[in-house]
Amino acid sequence: MTSVAKRKITRPVCLGNVQIGGGAPVAVQSMTCTDTRDVKATVAQIRRLEKAGCEIARVAVPDMDAAMALGAIKKKINLPLIADIHFDYRLALEAIRRGADGIRINPGNMKPGKIREVIKAAKASGTVIRIGINSGSLEKELHAKYGGATADALVASALRNIALFEDMGFEALKISIKSSDVLTTISACRIVSQKTDYPLHLGVTEAGSIIHAAIKSSLGIGILLSEGIGDTIRVSVTGDPVSEVGVAYGILRALEIRKVGPDIISCPTCGRCEIDLVRLTREVEKKLAGMKTYMKIALMGCVVNGPGEAVEADIGIAGGRGFGIIFKKGKMARKVREKDLVPALLEEVKHLAAEKQKSR
Amino acid sequence: MTSVAKRKITRPVCLGNVQIGGGAPVAVQSMTCTDTRDVKATVAQIRRLEKAGCEIARVAVPDMDAAMALGAIKKKINLPLIADIHFDYRLALEAIRRGADGIRINPGNMKPGKIREVIKAAKASGTVIRIGINSGSLEKELHAKYGGATADALVASALRNIALFEDMGFEALKISIKSSDVLTTISACRIVSQKTDYPLHLGVTEAGSIIHAAIKSSLGIGILLSEGIGDTIRVSVTGDPVSEVGVAYGILRALEIRKVGPDIISCPTCGRCEIDLVRLTREVEKKLAGMKTYMKIALMGCVVNGPGEAVEADIGIAGGRGFGIIFKKGKMARKVREKDLVPALLEEVKHLAAEKQKSR
Repeated sequence: MTSVAKRKITRPVCLGNVQIGGGAPVAVQSMTCTDTRDVKATVAQIRRLEKAGCEIARVAVPDMDAAMALGAIKKKINLPLIADIHFDYRLALEAIRRGADGIRINPGNMKPGKIREVIKAAKASGTVIRIGINSGSLEKELHAKYGGATADALVASALRNIALFEDMGFEALKISIKSSDVLTTISACRIVSQKTDYPLHLGVTEAGSIIHAAIKSSLGIGILLSEGIGDTIRVSVTGDPVSEVGVAYGILRALEIRKVGPDIISCPTCGRCEIDLVRLTREVEKKLAGMKTYMKIALMGCVVNGPGEAVEADIGIAGGRGFGIIFKKGKMARKVREKDLVPALLEEVKHLAAEKQKSR
Repeated sequence: MTSVAKRKITRPVCLGNVQIGGGAPVAVQSMTCTDTRDVKATVAQIRRLEKAGCEIARVAVPDMDAAMALGAIKKKINLPLIADIHFDYRLALEAIRRGADGIRINPGNMKPGKIREVIKAAKASGTVIRIGINSGSLEKELHAKYGGATADALVASALRNIALFEDMGFEALKISIKSSDVLTTISACRIVSQKTDYPLHLGVTEAGSIIHAAIKSSLGIGILLSEGIGDTIRVSVTGDPVSEVGVAYGILRALEIRKVGPDIISCPTCGRCEIDLVRLTREVEKKLAGMKTYMKIALMGCVVNGPGEAVEADIGIAGGRGFGIIFKKGKMARKVREKDLVPALLEEVKHLAAEKQKSR
């Protein structure tokens, strides 16, 4: 029995060597917060994102200098590069010329006539385009017609723009409909997923600082993914974009859509806990940051659920007074003093990760 | 159009003056991590939880001294008090005697004969009982029969224990089925919600430190709530339990199930952002921590979605180079220098909160 619906198979598009849709794994995206004109800083951030597991990098292109910097950036990175364009179609044309793998345009702030110019250029160069509808920048007349940036208004904007692209025979499309409102995002994406077969990029826009972003994105993105909707995701965090990648994989891992990185199960501690589990958990998380191999690691403070959870995990600790028992694959492995627990656990994790790598 | 299903109406039970189920608001719970025998520390933590909006407090009762401390704790707090009991039915009897509003027992680690003793005492005193099934402590024979702590195994444990209570004419029940696995939690709660009418307490157990806990709980609790399932929730965080309350309200607010506290919409910043939005967001969040009044506050770094989002919010900022524009109820109110933005915004928030309080 599964709680997650079978994924809808959408039409595939390729961003560099990353396929989106068509049954490909749900791809994790992020966006830089550097000044795109600063090539060095932007490249450094994209490399940090890549190291964290990000698979597609988007950069803001607010002016012509930023558009012209894309060529230099592209040369120095491995990830597919998306140029984020608003208002000025000439920036889109320049981004295409400079070799962006994809561009994202926002039809709410670009005229249909100008969008046609962009489509022509993208078609000639094989560039993917994301139609990125956003609650904060919906076309004015749709805002008026629907009485706000409602789900129906956002869907109407998406469909009307899809038609514009299809009229010109352009189908290398991704679609996103993002609202800062979680329920509007869910409703709009459900409808658009029924009405089209293009791959969908999911996200709750302006979701806030990390904890708020984790909540809103898990709900907005997670509920849709659990219904089989969505081909690529971006968690929006006010803060270091590297943290967006961690949250994205956390969502995918919990829903068992992609098993990447350690699943750390740790108890909330209570009046029964006899070891400093909060500190221990923090240390283990810090040491394992960026690890890609999937495994279940249980960090448990006492004997109520401790041994039970530790046994179910690949590697587990159940704490006692001043010591802990390490479990491996369901079997008690050894008893260690509290101060030696973290190194002993990390050693086991390292061994298991190496084994898993070998058996791949 | 709504993305959240109508809530299932369950049989109501009352914990002190807090109704659970029967159409009452979804109640927010937490659990102390103090030594319950330390009355002063436990009371202090429960008061902090109450201040943060927690509506029901649970404490661990690992031994007779902890059970005997409940009377003194109960006298000094306003929240309904739940005693969390494992293994020893005598602790449950003592907790009932000391005036606990509810007890939580874990049938995986208490014999049916002993549970009957507890039921008798709870019936005589009007104490509510939660049957708390947990993946880490499932009855051994069910674990063997189902090949692990699967959703079906957890449901079988719940149903068998419900029957034991019903046989004795006891119906002041709440049910919880928690797994550290998000999908198992969802599957098990869906089934048990179809099979019984008792109010359900939702949670993903041992969900980890705050960000992981926010992800897993938003998915596990949130997907169920969005289907109309769940009467009370607890977010489990390895860390300060006060943070559990914030995440719980974040989930309820995003799903529009309970509108408590500020909904802060803030952009992820990008190459377009011209103010220090990360710092500004952190400051605003810190200043508004614990605020109960609901309002939408948009903190936006630039002109792409900034004015659009700021206009939709109750109060908003759209940043420019070294300044910001404050929006109130969709209208531009004033332009302020960046350094004056936070105090100016907080002043507006205070005014609006006072207005909202008055009009209630």
